[in-house]
Amino acid sequence: MANSPNCDLKSLSPLQLFERVTEQGEKVRALKAGKAPKDEIDAAVRMLLSLKLSYKTTTGQDYQAGLPPKDLVLINNGTAKEEDEDLVDPWNVQTSNAKGVDYDKLIVRFGSSKIDTDLINRIERAIGQKPHHFLRRGIFFSHRDMDQVLDAYENKKPFYLYTGRGPSSQAMHVGHLIPFMFTKWLQEVFDVPLVIQLTDDEKYLWKDMTIEKAYDYARENAKDIIACGFDVNKTFIFSDLDYLGTSAGFYKNIVKVQKHVTFNQVKGIFGFTDSDCIGKISFPAIQAAPSFSSSFPQIFNGKENIQCLIPCAIDQDPYFRMTRDVAPRIGQPKPALLHSVFFPALQGAQTKMSASDPNSSIFLTDTPKQIKTKINKHAFSGGRDTIEEHRKYGGNCDVDVSFMYLTFFLEDDDRLEQLKQAYTSGELLTGELKKVLIETMQPLVAAHQERRKQVTDEIVKQFMTPRKLAFEF
Amino acid sequence: MANSPNCDLKSLSPLQLFERVTEQGEKVRALKAGKAPKDEIDAAVRMLLSLKLSYKTTTGQDYQAGLPPKDLVLINNGTAKEEDEDLVDPWNVQTSNAKGVDYDKLIVRFGSSKIDTDLINRIERAIGQKPHHFLRRGIFFSHRDMDQVLDAYENKKPFYLYTGRGPSSQAMHVGHLIPFMFTKWLQEVFDVPLVIQLTDDEKYLWKDMTIEKAYDYARENAKDIIACGFDVNKTFIFSDLDYLGTSAGFYKNIVKVQKHVTFNQVKGIFGFTDSDCIGKISFPAIQAAPSFSSSFPQIFNGKENIQCLIPCAIDQDPYFRMTRDVAPRIGQPKPALLHSVFFPALQGAQTKMSASDPNSSIFLTDTPKQIKTKINKHAFSGGRDTIEEHRKYGGNCDVDVSFMYLTFFLEDDDRLEQLKQAYTSGELLTGELKKVLIETMQPLVAAHQERRKQVTDEIVKQFMTPRKLAFEF
Repeated sequence: MANSPNCDLKSLSPLQLFERVTEQGEKVRALKAGKAPKDEIDAAVRMLLSLKLSYKTTTGQDYQAGLPPKDLVLINNGTAKEEDEDLVDPWNVQTSNAKGVDYDKLIVRFGSSKIDTDLINRIERAIGQKPHHFLRRGIFFSHRDMDQVLDAYENKKPFYLYTGRGPSSQAMHVGHLIPFMFTKWLQEVFDVPLVIQLTDDEKYLWKDMTIEKAYDYARENAKDIIACGFDVNKTFIFSDLDYLGTSAGFYKNIVKVQKHVTFNQVKGIFGFTDSDCIGKISFPAIQAAPSFSSSFPQIFNGKENIQCLIPCAIDQDPYFRMTRDVAPRIGQPKPALLHSVFFPALQGAQTKMSASDPNSSIFLTDTPKQIKTKINKHAFSGGRDTIEEHRKYGGNCDVDVSFMYLTFFLEDDDRLEQLKQAYTSGELLTGELKKVLIETMQPLVAAHQERRKQVTDEIVKQFMTPRKLAFEF
Repeated sequence: MANSPNCDLKSLSPLQLFERVTEQGEKVRALKAGKAPKDEIDAAVRMLLSLKLSYKTTTGQDYQAGLPPKDLVLINNGTAKEEDEDLVDPWNVQTSNAKGVDYDKLIVRFGSSKIDTDLINRIERAIGQKPHHFLRRGIFFSHRDMDQVLDAYENKKPFYLYTGRGPSSQAMHVGHLIPFMFTKWLQEVFDVPLVIQLTDDEKYLWKDMTIEKAYDYARENAKDIIACGFDVNKTFIFSDLDYLGTSAGFYKNIVKVQKHVTFNQVKGIFGFTDSDCIGKISFPAIQAAPSFSSSFPQIFNGKENIQCLIPCAIDQDPYFRMTRDVAPRIGQPKPALLHSVFFPALQGAQTKMSASDPNSSIFLTDTPKQIKTKINKHAFSGGRDTIEEHRKYGGNCDVDVSFMYLTFFLEDDDRLEQLKQAYTSGELLTGELKKVLIETMQPLVAAHQERRKQVTDEIVKQFMTPRKLAFEF
């Protein structure tokens, strides 16, 4: 997505979009006044209409010359938010923009670094192969200290990967696979140990759910994660409810973090209030602790200072900003991070997919027919209202959810670029683009289901048993 | 202490004492005016002087007719405290009264029940032997639901004992032995399992101490606890830092409690503020969880609903008030409690002994000479200023720390009563009473040291290994 010609639009606020429409309108008037060639004028008009559509999708209002969009002030944890600021924390992702959250602004707000071409090239040199399309297409778009991880790797110093999932329901959707697909690739190219935390305790604390249910979900979710193809000799998957009761090192790191973070701090970072239960208030330490290798003495032979790299969606960053703040005070290295964008809901990129709304997601348990129906019925289209208009002005890939999904799941760069051009030019219709997505997702989900069937309880037990992995420390 | 003739004085506020002095003054005047027999007048005068002394010791002021003591308003966690209200929470014990905390008022304030003669008699009938002198002398003075424990016992239903210690230093003092001496007796007469929690995590969170130091203290303290004579087949001692990482059931109960207690609640109970670390805020759940048998699946065969009885000093009650509030909401029985008074500092009963002030305590590591010096030099005396006055008016056992210590450690009831009468009448001097205490404490501490020497690291390991005990569940 980041490399597409129109992608700079997605970083624009409604006010900036308004200014772009106004500018483009002036350009069209100037071209007409200067009697410019017809196809030059036509191209400028097409651009103007496309900008007007973006403006309408983003603001919900028609563009009116001289009438800029109204300021909208939202409250997020007591902080006044500007109209164009998105709400992003571990429990909420909300934006008014159909193209999704403004990630460049998020980088500035969160104080992380953009994954730029230089970094992608450096990764390519380090691993000696083409970087994953999630990196090339800006799906993993932000990082913290990835250069230090590469320094370490180039100097043959060890590091490990840590990612996780909150098991809030039995069925996972395709969006949940993104961090695991990328983590699997990272593990393969760097050949490093991986720990995967299932925060069943978090789900028990936050949801109206028994502890047994949360633990069941953790094990069910582990099957879907394992079905991504992780190597049991290099991967440890753990449920908090389980592992806290079996690890000498994990609780010690939790209590160390808990000593160095005040209620004031978690209130500021996570928006907790005095009415929140003490479990929620202390939970951030439990998500922080796996960032330290001493939480896994069985894997790292008791070694304390192995560098950790965390691939995760950007909404999890608040936990790790806190972790990085605490780390030096408890004598531990700061974990490095790779942040992904959110996976959009079928209905549009204003919010991320949610497992609790069955129509917002393609579930890993969906049948080919369900996938077809959901995409045809719910996938938000960036196409025009009539075939005639579409043929004339083309579709808008920036807001088209089917196209967004293809950037995640269609690995063939050339094919994706062809689709983009054909759709933008109006040659490809919405129904045809959806068909490509259906034909991409159906075999992908079916293959996942096939692999998941092979994941027996015995295999889950192997992954979830604390043990030495195939690495020497 | 509770059975002594003067003991009702200790429950009086400065104002009530003022009124008693005034009344007694009027009585003396009336006797003199009525030309009563000389020894009757003398006895009334002696009582008046004793009351005046109590008044002075309690208020720090001389009694002045017609001038009642000034009101003193202290702030305790935002609550205005009356002048005669003591400060009692898990980290502070403070009173202005030389006879110590007003325990009858504490029972009313905490909403617990007094251990009265009926209950003591019922315990005697249940166990078929004389109750421990800690019960007979009001050292364990308050309870919650002890009748239910006795109901269960009489109906052959199982229960278990839970007590603990915060390992804040390597050396324990004699006051620390009180709950363990009493717990040992309870275990022997009822023949039940016992779990002992060492809250090394709490000490790490509250003190400027490394996690390793806190854990070392826990193991050192375990040696002193084992030296009290516990049966390894019936007793499990655990450090939180250790056991949390080895028990499937413990963390689950912790997180259940944490889900059902809000920050508002712990703020109200423990006085936490927004500047406290999240470890302190969530810690109360860790002290609560051993009240539920499912925290010890290895002992109770996974059974969830075994009744728990907690012998502890009254300052720990806030933790268990919280626990009893949560218990029914997580489907667990409320733990029952037996509360002890505080062990007074050598300098006087206004505060409890503290391991951090070496002169406030007789340590379990003290030599006979150190014990002698400390008692002679620091034990607050209820005797008169001169031998002549002492012979004439007698000493005050209610404020005399040597006498208080003897109520804890001199098991012979007749001997104690003789000493009390002799001291109160003036026959026994302060130095002589101190000599009795020295001769009681020196062999007691020496015997403890001898038993402690036998406690090898191997024995500590046995006690601290999670395992089945000698009971079937």
